[in-house]
Amino acid sequence: MATVTPQASGGFSDEQFKALFRFHPAGVAIITLMQGQTPVGFTATSVISVSAAPAVIAFSVQATSSSWVALASTDSLIIHFLSEDQQHLATRFATSGINRFADVQWVCLPTGEPLLLEAGTWTRCTVRDRHQAGGSFLVQVSPEQGCVQDLFVPIIYQGRGFHKLGARVP
Amino acid sequence: MATVTPQASGGFSDEQFKALFRFHPAGVAIITLMQGQTPVGFTATSVISVSAAPAVIAFSVQATSSSWVALASTDSLIIHFLSEDQQHLATRFATSGINRFADVQWVCLPTGEPLLLEAGTWTRCTVRDRHQAGGSFLVQVSPEQGCVQDLFVPIIYQGRGFHKLGARVP
Repeated sequence: MATVTPQASGGFSDEQFKALFRFHPAGVAIITLMQGQTPVGFTATSVISVSAAPAVIAFSVQATSSSWVALASTDSLIIHFLSEDQQHLATRFATSGINRFADVQWVCLPTGEPLLLEAGTWTRCTVRDRHQAGGSFLVQVSPEQGCVQDLFVPIIYQGRGFHKLGARVP
Repeated sequence: MATVTPQASGGFSDEQFKALFRFHPAGVAIITLMQGQTPVGFTATSVISVSAAPAVIAFSVQATSSSWVALASTDSLIIHFLSEDQQHLATRFATSGINRFADVQWVCLPTGEPLLLEAGTWTRCTVRDRHQAGGSFLVQVSPEQGCVQDLFVPIIYQGRGFHKLGARVP
């Protein structure tokens, strides 16, 4: 059985916070948008469904990230949901100092956003709100258009690595 | 290979939205708080790390839920992160019309919040912000205290059921 490290008095350390969310699993998405004529994209593990009626999705982005500069002024973006065989896309769009769009097939939608053709499950969204949250922003978006693959099997990010979905718990 | 259902023109249906987040995997947490002298708790699959410095966690809750009535006026709460063998807790705290605390061991922290003893990974948080998002609220909280189990293996919610974490993708 795992050891419990009690923390009886106040205080939750940076190390505990990091450990907590290293353990916490998440689905993986790539968010893309245009910054002028240039496509911008990044891997996100914070995409959640917030409201069903009206449909609202949210995700967080660090205020110091280069993606935030583009996100701060865009009206629309695409969220691509990654399947179990798309770890390479997740890694590419989390890598700094490269042209993330160089070796992937992408097109612009008629509405202007860059669509990654390899990702079969995606939604184009309009931005409805950007709200500061500590050193980050929570961005709320409304889905407007998209595709959802039948039998989509997601990839999972956990423990600083990617995993397949495991067996169903009865 | 999965079938792609193209949606060339505008519009993202309620069915597509539901399918999208039925496929999207998530970690599972139970959030507890006191409403007067009564413990309140609910299962949440929307807990995300938003900011590391300062540490901020967020989750969403429907404005029409009974939990929101309690959340709207509390200063503090506990987020319990569920491991692969705790599906029963997730199910219990998502069931309506029962006393969710009846058959579980819990205590009040000195600061007043109800702690589920079975959950070894948890954090007591203060509420820093409640922000409307469609028919829900995004709640931002700051971790103040807690425990993180070594070797914690999380349970995953996906496809309307619970799953184990699968094999690491190399």
